Amino acid sequence: MTEISIGSTLEYDVRTTTIFLFKIAAGWTPHQRVHNEQLTFDPLLDVEACQVGAEGNRLHRVVVEPCQLSIQYQAQVELTPDIDSPNTVGESRPADMPPEVLTYMNPSRYCESDLLGRFAFEEFGNLPRGFSRVQAICDWVYKQLDYTPGSTNATTTAADVLLQRTGVCRDYAHLAITLCRGVGIPARYVSGYAVNLQPPDYHGFVEAFLDGQWYLFDPTRLASTTGLVRIGVGRDAADVAFSTLTGSAVLKQKNVWANFADTHPNANHASAVSIS
Amino acid sequence: MTEISIGSTLEYDVRTTTIFLFKIAAGWTPHQRVHNEQLTFDPLLDVEACQVGAEGNRLHRVVVEPCQLSIQYQAQVELTPDIDSPNTVGESRPADMPPEVLTYMNPSRYCESDLLGRFAFEEFGNLPRGFSRVQAICDWVYKQLDYTPGSTNATTTAADVLLQRTGVCRDYAHLAITLCRGVGIPARYVSGYAVNLQPPDYHGFVEAFLDGQWYLFDPTRLASTTGLVRIGVGRDAADVAFSTLTGSAVLKQKNVWANFADTHPNANHASAVSIS
Amino acid sequence: MTEISIGSTLEYDVRTTTIFLFKIAAGWTPHQRVHNEQLTFDPLLDVEACQVGAEGNRLHRVVVEPCQLSIQYQAQVELTPDIDSPNTVGESRPADMPPEVLTYMNPSRYCESDLLGRFAFEEFGNLPRGFSRVQAICDWVYKQLDYTPGSTNATTTAADVLLQRTGVCRDYAHLAITLCRGVGIPARYVSGYAVNLQPPDYHGFVEAFLDGQWYLFDPTRLASTTGLVRIGVGRDAADVAFSTLTGSAVLKQKNVWANFADTHPNANHASAVSIS
Amino acid sequence: MTEISIGSTLEYDVRTTTIFLFKIAAGWTPHQRVHNEQLTFDPLLDVEACQVGAEGNRLHRVVVEPCQLSIQYQAQVELTPDIDSPNTVGESRPADMPPEVLTYMNPSRYCESDLLGRFAFEEFGNLPRGFSRVQAICDWVYKQLDYTPGSTNATTTAADVLLQRTGVCRDYAHLAITLCRGVGIPARYVSGYAVNLQPPDYHGFVEAFLDGQWYLFDPTRLASTTGLVRIGVGRDAADVAFSTLTGSAVLKQKNVWANFADTHPNANHASAVSIS
Repeated sequence: MTEISIGSTLEYDVRTTTIFLFKIAAGWTPHQRVHNEQLTFDPLLDVEACQVGAEGNRLHRVVVEPCQLSIQYQAQVELTPDIDSPNTVGESRPADMPPEVLTYMNPSRYCESDLLGRFAFEEFGNLPRGFSRVQAICDWVYKQLDYTPGSTNATTTAADVLLQRTGVCRDYAHLAITLCRGVGIPARYVSGYAVNLQPPDYHGFVEAFLDGQWYLFDPTRLASTTGLVRIGVGRDAADVAFSTLTGSAVLKQKNVWANFADTHPNANHASAVSIS
Repeated sequence: MTEISIGSTLEYDVRTTTIFLFKIAAGWTPHQRVHNEQLTFDPLLDVEACQVGAEGNRLHRVVVEPCQLSIQYQAQVELTPDIDSPNTVGESRPADMPPEVLTYMNPSRYCESDLLGRFAFEEFGNLPRGFSRVQAICDWVYKQLDYTPGSTNATTTAADVLLQRTGVCRDYAHLAITLCRGVGIPARYVSGYAVNLQPPDYHGFVEAFLDGQWYLFDPTRLASTTGLVRIGVGRDAADVAFSTLTGSAVLKQKNVWANFADTHPNANHASAVSIS
Repeated sequence: MTEISIGSTLEYDVRTTTIFLFKIAAGWTPHQRVHNEQLTFDPLLDVEACQVGAEGNRLHRVVVEPCQLSIQYQAQVELTPDIDSPNTVGESRPADMPPEVLTYMNPSRYCESDLLGRFAFEEFGNLPRGFSRVQAICDWVYKQLDYTPGSTNATTTAADVLLQRTGVCRDYAHLAITLCRGVGIPARYVSGYAVNLQPPDYHGFVEAFLDGQWYLFDPTRLASTTGLVRIGVGRDAADVAFSTLTGSAVLKQKNVWANFADTHPNANHASAVSIS
Repeated sequence: MTEISIGSTLEYDVRTTTIFLFKIAAGWTPHQRVHNEQLTFDPLLDVEACQVGAEGNRLHRVVVEPCQLSIQYQAQVELTPDIDSPNTVGESRPADMPPEVLTYMNPSRYCESDLLGRFAFEEFGNLPRGFSRVQAICDWVYKQLDYTPGSTNATTTAADVLLQRTGVCRDYAHLAITLCRGVGIPARYVSGYAVNLQPPDYHGFVEAFLDGQWYLFDPTRLASTTGLVRIGVGRDAADVAFSTLTGSAVLKQKNVWANFADTHPNANHASAVSIS
């Protein structure tokens, strides 16, 4: 069991009546429990909380009149991950995958697995199947790319990233997801909090479906998979932006943190970790 | 109430052990009931039927050894659509949309509404809100494009289509969906059967979310919205391919039909029709 | 006859031995004469001046050791443009065009006239042929796009611009060129100086080949075609970057100016102007 | 000295008055002489022959009324290539390259060296400079791609090819050219005839500028560089299409051949060959 304190604050200059969707609260899964959660809006607002879809992504919707808006979120998260030895984790056969997982084999906006299928297959098609194959994909992505803030934008796709060889966490995740799908492994994007992330920010990482469950991977190597807290999952970053707005507002400040509470767990990079 | 007889036959030359996912059976919705349904595989196979996700898309999964595979599907579909007068149908405000609808505002693989948002907004942002705005988008798509079989392929996106000005039903739908999302109207892709479609084939069309429900649109004008039967819905064609396969098999033949049973309904092109 | 004073200063922080190619000097054409030209480098350097290709673009090449590099260029330019009445200027037939002009019908890096040929033809294919058709294309580009500094970068193409609807002078020019080529009119990119450009900078505009000569167009409407001085021409901006460098150097400052000497000419926006 | 017999026949169904530009005649260079050349059109037509640009590409232009058009071309070509030992051929420094060569460092329509610059540099930036580096690029392209007729079309670019991993001679050449430019080596597209090409067709290959001259490379490995005859050169295939037409005509048949006359030369794959 691991305890992680997480939180973030956001400040907006809201210029017209604006509808915000926030995805900043830690998700609820059998392996991730959330305690002492506080979400406060200043000024006080009528916030609608909901949980959406099969994945249960949490969402906070709010209508805001022109003002200086502050949002504060914090929580204690208790993780009881399934931790397995990587070499015991194989791949699921398409004939055995739960139907709701199959959608994560389809191409999506930023993960054009249809375009990169042959590429993926030629690079990774002949590797031994299982956790190690996804790890090999993530290692390859790590080696191919240079982590370069500002080198990509909100419309950058996995194919773009493969060509230009630079990106940030979102791009690393998109490329790894695309290559997984390309060899027939369901994969999805996870937004979340990461302990000790430098520079501090929300993080984007990867879940791949292996042996009947979703395992965590971080191709940026910026965080240990034992220190990742899930906000939400989706096909790619389009689905789990921390904030989506209709109206006019400017983000003035963003602070994000995540720390191990009390005692550090034995962060073991070599483990297969599942919290979904 | 409308009755439509639908059916399709597929023949494959299966060369290695292959896993097929078929999405050819009519969906179950409050407005679409399915009777006398028959799905037969020759040779006889162990078929797994499932229903997936919030949208309840039906799926048939089967593992096939090398053989000549024939699939026959037929059913009677009873439609009791909500039919409204177009000028009474307004738009939903983002603050009021059911959360599960919001995902259909996100860009997807073939509908890059992030790239085309400004384009959509400049062309259609100032039109009166409601059914007529989606109709205006569909009319524009119809006028911009030439229906040209063979001019696009499985990787063609809405942006490609807007530039090249040709496409088939799938492309018309993708472009209309993208422009709807671009002005803030949730929209999704529907695969289905269409009465009197020429040439006969599975069809691809559009649902836009207006006034709290999903209304049908066909920007190709190849079919009346009162003669459309839904197989499944998704973000775009990536989600509802009639067949997805892992292995090696070649489609040798495909026949698709859809006819009004007994009596023709008064197909009124000017109606707002909802079957979801 | 028009006299224009032009000039620019550039300052670089040169970090390693760097080879620079500068394209900042006014070109020599029968209609554009250059007087009192000064190009000075500080520190003093061995500068190689050359004139390249059929178009005679001028180029200054220099090898620079690490230093603070200042370049100053200034000149008096005497323009004796061919000025015609637009409605007397027709199009050239492909059978009659000089062979060296034909290359400006080919697609180029930022002007994908192959992709946009159908688009161009459907929008502009039926307009009366001649100067007015190119003017119609430039007017359309002007209306479609919003001039938005920072909205594009060095890899943005005409197709990108058409979709995103924003750009700067370079993008306006690329889109107009592409659409001209798409309807069979040779068109090329001109880099140059523009009188009274706001904000001051090098400018990018268009030449279209009509009735046997190259006429100037500026789809941004930021400058009168009677106040344009040509540096060089190319297929698109790739060919006439003001500076190309191999090595490592950072541009610290850039100042550009262009003014009518003595007397203002009667800048008549409605004229067909040729200086090539 | 090598003698090669070349020829091609083309048949068109010309439906409206059509202007053709043909680029099918062997080019004239100091190392490539053309004898006994015959170019015949049936029906008899007034053919305009020209030679264009610094590269002297030959062009035949003809205006054709509706008819069945046959073109026959044949010639004897005498090659006296410069043949060097690869390991004596180094790279030219940008400071020393003839100015007219610099244009072949720029990105072009199908060779987006700006997009792939970083990719090229990371893969090939640290290799020893010289002929062997271009050879390494061509070897890499050969290994990455599968030669698959029909997998690409007239709008496919080097970036597309790198992602999809299939292509034909044109695509192999584009990718190799792009990677050369990406590491600072001028490179261009050559259209031509190739002895013993299977299946017989016009061929597309590469020239890279090394040590002051243009050397031949064929990344498809379908032909020996000692059996290549140049028609024309350009930035990419956009510049040297064998036929460009304005009007309406359908190519009904195409035959192309190239054979060593008399005696086979010692085709030595390991030589550095220049015919420009």
